[in-house]
Amino acid sequence: MNVSSDHLRRIGLELLQAAGAGLQEAALVSENLVAAELRGVPTHGINLLPAILERIAAGQMDIPTQLKVIADELAITHIDGGNGFGQTAAAEGMRRSIEKARRYGIGFSLIRNTNNIGLLALYSLMAAKEGMVGVCACNGAASMAPWGGAEPFFGTNPFSIAVPGGAGDPVVLDMSTTVVARGKIRRAARLKERIPFGWALDASGAPTDDPEAAIQGTLMPVGEYKGYGMAFFIDLICGLLSGSSYARAVRTFHKPDGPTGVGVMTLAIDINRFMPLDHFSKLIDEHIRMIRGSTKARGQNRIYLPGEIEVEREDLNKTRGVEVDSPVVKAIDALLEKRGIGLRLGDGEVQA
Amino acid sequence: MNVSSDHLRRIGLELLQAAGAGLQEAALVSENLVAAELRGVPTHGINLLPAILERIAAGQMDIPTQLKVIADELAITHIDGGNGFGQTAAAEGMRRSIEKARRYGIGFSLIRNTNNIGLLALYSLMAAKEGMVGVCACNGAASMAPWGGAEPFFGTNPFSIAVPGGAGDPVVLDMSTTVVARGKIRRAARLKERIPFGWALDASGAPTDDPEAAIQGTLMPVGEYKGYGMAFFIDLICGLLSGSSYARAVRTFHKPDGPTGVGVMTLAIDINRFMPLDHFSKLIDEHIRMIRGSTKARGQNRIYLPGEIEVEREDLNKTRGVEVDSPVVKAIDALLEKRGIGLRLGDGEVQA
Repeated sequence: MNVSSDHLRRIGLELLQAAGAGLQEAALVSENLVAAELRGVPTHGINLLPAILERIAAGQMDIPTQLKVIADELAITHIDGGNGFGQTAAAEGMRRSIEKARRYGIGFSLIRNTNNIGLLALYSLMAAKEGMVGVCACNGAASMAPWGGAEPFFGTNPFSIAVPGGAGDPVVLDMSTTVVARGKIRRAARLKERIPFGWALDASGAPTDDPEAAIQGTLMPVGEYKGYGMAFFIDLICGLLSGSSYARAVRTFHKPDGPTGVGVMTLAIDINRFMPLDHFSKLIDEHIRMIRGSTKARGQNRIYLPGEIEVEREDLNKTRGVEVDSPVVKAIDALLEKRGIGLRLGDGEVQA
Repeated sequence: MNVSSDHLRRIGLELLQAAGAGLQEAALVSENLVAAELRGVPTHGINLLPAILERIAAGQMDIPTQLKVIADELAITHIDGGNGFGQTAAAEGMRRSIEKARRYGIGFSLIRNTNNIGLLALYSLMAAKEGMVGVCACNGAASMAPWGGAEPFFGTNPFSIAVPGGAGDPVVLDMSTTVVARGKIRRAARLKERIPFGWALDASGAPTDDPEAAIQGTLMPVGEYKGYGMAFFIDLICGLLSGSSYARAVRTFHKPDGPTGVGVMTLAIDINRFMPLDHFSKLIDEHIRMIRGSTKARGQNRIYLPGEIEVEREDLNKTRGVEVDSPVVKAIDALLEKRGIGLRLGDGEVQA
């Protein structure tokens, strides 16, 4: 079923408020989930709503989110996320990093004790929209083995970098340090599809195309030992150094086994300290033209910038609606009914 | 031939001084080249000496290096490398980043207009040795195509991250954003060896195992579009934002076609602002034990930390000497003779 993004946003807002979030927080989280759907990353989208509500109902997330600033010294901020919404914590971390960068040239925040932050690009883009370089990273529940290992140890530990795009959209990279994010494998399991070899190993360490076996096993790091190294350092900075959980101690968001203990970092660099922003804009416009104009590989007729496919999907999905899998439709409609909310996903269906 | 590292260092020192470097600068550069050899990265090692001397002789590098501070404001520094030694510029950038981090919690430097900086790990390790997280990245001559492209556009754009290792050695990741560094392909060409498929594409965009065809073609980004994205952002920050060359305008160090225009970034984060360093040390010691103790993949009996293989090679090479390929022996001995320096590589040979 294709559902309008406005309708999805409204459903998210209602469900999150019913679960105890204030209007502003519910809007932020709902916006992040719907943005993920619009950008074609449904694994970070509204399929998370049932997990969020289950977690709150089980008393394993403290909503509304109460952030606590542990340290705010010159160019750095250290925040305790109060086991609340990761979206609230990450947005506040980036807001402060931007403020620090405006003053000191660079700003850095570490956040401990929070939960799933959804789509990372939204935080790095906050900085890009302020004329800055933005970086965001977080750790997550164990799913990748150290290179040479067979046991889940590191999360998919994603990171995102964004810069203003001159006359065009900002350019943004948002990647996990595994070959694919775990959500893609969970989605394949939900849809009873096979996965390509090279995405994951089974529990014995052998390559597999069975998503269920992959969930029991480990995800392949991107570029083998390189992805392992990146995941290691993201875990170390976001988890260990922030005072949050790290390595095997980070719990999955998808089962209510207790607070996840996710850690997050946000960083902003003020472009203006190095070059006037309008000059940067001119250079990047020209740079983008050069990339697009460079020789294509055989069979390719276009070169995409990092994040460009997501922006195009967003434009498309804004008009044609967001495709929602039927298991997700069922789960969310059941939640709406249970909470006595008079909305159903189908009310916002967009006809092809 | 296996040569003692002390002897290599002395040869580097003599040749670099003969080419116009002061004692301190010659020692720094020589140390970096020999460290690369010791750590098993000969592509960043003393085979660079002939290229360095040729470049200086051709008047395309300005030695001794004269750095110029363009901006030094609160937590950031902007440096012009004066088209000198990259090693001198990167070390100064990191020295200043560390100083800033001590004061502001985080410090960031951008360097424009410099050259090859050698082994990046040595700069990130400077921060680790001061109880900080250290990050270093640089751009380089075009060798990777944008994903979907067939034309060299980005460099291998490597980066390095290091942290103090508690009771043990610091942990350090040092990786290019291509599947392999270009030096490995040049080395295969020099030794007339084939390369594995998956390292590179030929000029038409087809996979190749011929190092000469690969040199004419492009290097594969690590993790496909992910490596392209990382290379893009490293080029943008180190090159474009620093005011240095970027994209196709960066020239290779291996032919004296004019200043390379390499750009560099260094970043340091003071661990003490987030957690007492001795507590961090305890946590990381335990973390390392957990990684090492985690389940091995079938056929593996050990899990290595990022950078650990390099440290073991360093220990080994310190006693058995550094293996130097015969074309490199010939080239360096010829330089020593030409400069009237009474040393030869063979004088420092270590017998097995």
